[in-house]
Amino acid sequence: MRVGVLGGGQLGRMLALAGYPLGLTFRFLDPSPEACAGQVGALFVGDFLDEEALRRFAEGLDLVTYEFENVPVEAARFLEGLLPVRPTPKALEVAQDRLREKTFFRELGVPTPPFHPVEGLEDLEEGLRRVGLPALLKTRRGGYDGKGQALIRTLEEAPKALEALGGKGLILEGFVPFDREVSLLAVRGLGGEVAFYPLVENHHRGGILRLSRAPAPGLSPDLQAKAEGYARVALEALGYVGVLALEFFQVGQELLFNEMAPRVHNSGHWTIEGAETSQFENHLRAVLGLPLGSTAPRGHSAMVNLIGHRPDLAQVLALEGVHLHWYGKAVRPGRKVGHITLRREGLPELEEALPRLLSLAGV
Amino acid sequence: MRVGVLGGGQLGRMLALAGYPLGLTFRFLDPSPEACAGQVGALFVGDFLDEEALRRFAEGLDLVTYEFENVPVEAARFLEGLLPVRPTPKALEVAQDRLREKTFFRELGVPTPPFHPVEGLEDLEEGLRRVGLPALLKTRRGGYDGKGQALIRTLEEAPKALEALGGKGLILEGFVPFDREVSLLAVRGLGGEVAFYPLVENHHRGGILRLSRAPAPGLSPDLQAKAEGYARVALEALGYVGVLALEFFQVGQELLFNEMAPRVHNSGHWTIEGAETSQFENHLRAVLGLPLGSTAPRGHSAMVNLIGHRPDLAQVLALEGVHLHWYGKAVRPGRKVGHITLRREGLPELEEALPRLLSLAGV
Repeated sequence: MRVGVLGGGQLGRMLALAGYPLGLTFRFLDPSPEACAGQVGALFVGDFLDEEALRRFAEGLDLVTYEFENVPVEAARFLEGLLPVRPTPKALEVAQDRLREKTFFRELGVPTPPFHPVEGLEDLEEGLRRVGLPALLKTRRGGYDGKGQALIRTLEEAPKALEALGGKGLILEGFVPFDREVSLLAVRGLGGEVAFYPLVENHHRGGILRLSRAPAPGLSPDLQAKAEGYARVALEALGYVGVLALEFFQVGQELLFNEMAPRVHNSGHWTIEGAETSQFENHLRAVLGLPLGSTAPRGHSAMVNLIGHRPDLAQVLALEGVHLHWYGKAVRPGRKVGHITLRREGLPELEEALPRLLSLAGV
Repeated sequence: MRVGVLGGGQLGRMLALAGYPLGLTFRFLDPSPEACAGQVGALFVGDFLDEEALRRFAEGLDLVTYEFENVPVEAARFLEGLLPVRPTPKALEVAQDRLREKTFFRELGVPTPPFHPVEGLEDLEEGLRRVGLPALLKTRRGGYDGKGQALIRTLEEAPKALEALGGKGLILEGFVPFDREVSLLAVRGLGGEVAFYPLVENHHRGGILRLSRAPAPGLSPDLQAKAEGYARVALEALGYVGVLALEFFQVGQELLFNEMAPRVHNSGHWTIEGAETSQFENHLRAVLGLPLGSTAPRGHSAMVNLIGHRPDLAQVLALEGVHLHWYGKAVRPGRKVGHITLRREGLPELEEALPRLLSLAGV
């Protein structure tokens, strides 16, 4: 089977590395000739909005999926006229608009932080009365890794934040004093079967994921069941096929939905070594209509992102149970250039070894 | 780092898939434009004995290794004049000649079945007196997967066997009534450090490996230590760098050396999912001068070869703990086209699930 992937970054690269053993071949569409998936598969350089490019890209492929959720929905819809596109472009639509995304989950009965649409100062003032202070003002579209948002601590800061973010097309979100951030990697097969990885504990800095622990330490079966229930209704409502990532704020034993990614996700990279079947393989199994693989964890894992930093490989690889994933990208400040997964049978051994890895990784 | 690989078959393909996460790139040299590693890396089609082709192949590479032990030694020696070639071409020389190989190990104090060089009928008769009947007559060079050998059960069969194998350049080996065949995957780093995977139990049919169980069921620490001791002296004597596979006959708690492969090996494929670090990654770590990774097994694994048979993928992937490796080769009778690893935490669960897999794999 020939799989087309919209986007040619590290997620596409890891999809291909998981897919070759299944006998698949890969073609990536990306506007950049430097896209790092091109080092491991055929890279087709083109604009997502160029219909002629999309048509040529699709030629001879069996299906298309994405590794990037900011693919223009029109591109996915156009391709849908030519061949199967999984997951459904509807999931892109929902994920690309924070207001639509939060509304979608709230309507499914999934708790979210309080939020309010903002199209001007009046909305913002009304929103601040409803969600309280401090609050986060965010662009509805296009922000990622902490970009496109402003923290409002006092009413006086509101107009400036509004102006900085363009004055409209925004969403105000109540600031939740959460215990921790967790994420769920869910996967739904073509026949509707679902599987879930254990919840992961995530640590961000500067809006970028730095460290994930999987399974989330102290995870209760109840919390896992709650997250799975929320994911299940979303998967069903979207008629979703593939891996879906959901980020939550954990407050006590409650979960508040924060955001979704309709693709494999950075907080699921630990599954390559830390679960029986990786998120990448399970995404491919799902979109190809194959049975899903076991999502059971193998021991305990910590995943550390390499952000704008190439560590000393010899020092990193000298640590027991360490698995390096270098993406083949040029190192630039703030850029995700790789990740390292540390796997151990038990959590205490993992925690004992982790500080050394964090130090080498520059986290 | 740019790694050149002599040979472009499935072993090269799996080396590349293990090496991309380390940030490596790969170039394969193979006489066939169909070589399946070409689907995942740059394939350079050329003859191993064409010096101009070797020169162009080597251009811009940082080092060369092999995935095929029948590379002409001259090719490896020629490349050695241009860039590092690991493991040493001397290991090829030893491995390519069964007489030299067995003599080498015997001189190191490693027990072997009785053997005798055969350059004519007189040698063969002398050999049969020494090693007894039945005995195996083999070509010293070029045989693999059961080809190039004849079983001699009676003295009367000797001349015919001799003629069938060309009359000279042969080795006669005593037939050992062994309990089972086991293999050891050993790895030696550039700095001389060594690591060993647990012994694997192998089952052949028609001279082709069909099934490996790892760790070998009922493996005693003494037997493992014995195998490691034998491997250690061989690694040292060769100044070896990389993964070396040693096949033994197990007789009680004794091991008789059968043959070596100076490369990653079919009986080590289980390490991709069944060990902390795969044989492929450890080979690359070794030849690159990086620290070796942990060889600890994770649970129990069975590796089943797909020989001239493409199983129903949906049925195979529906089995829990199954990992498919399809090599992207055309299916032909007797050809290794893939393998499947079944991994479980415990041996009883593994044995319970294995018959179904064997049946699907057509073993």
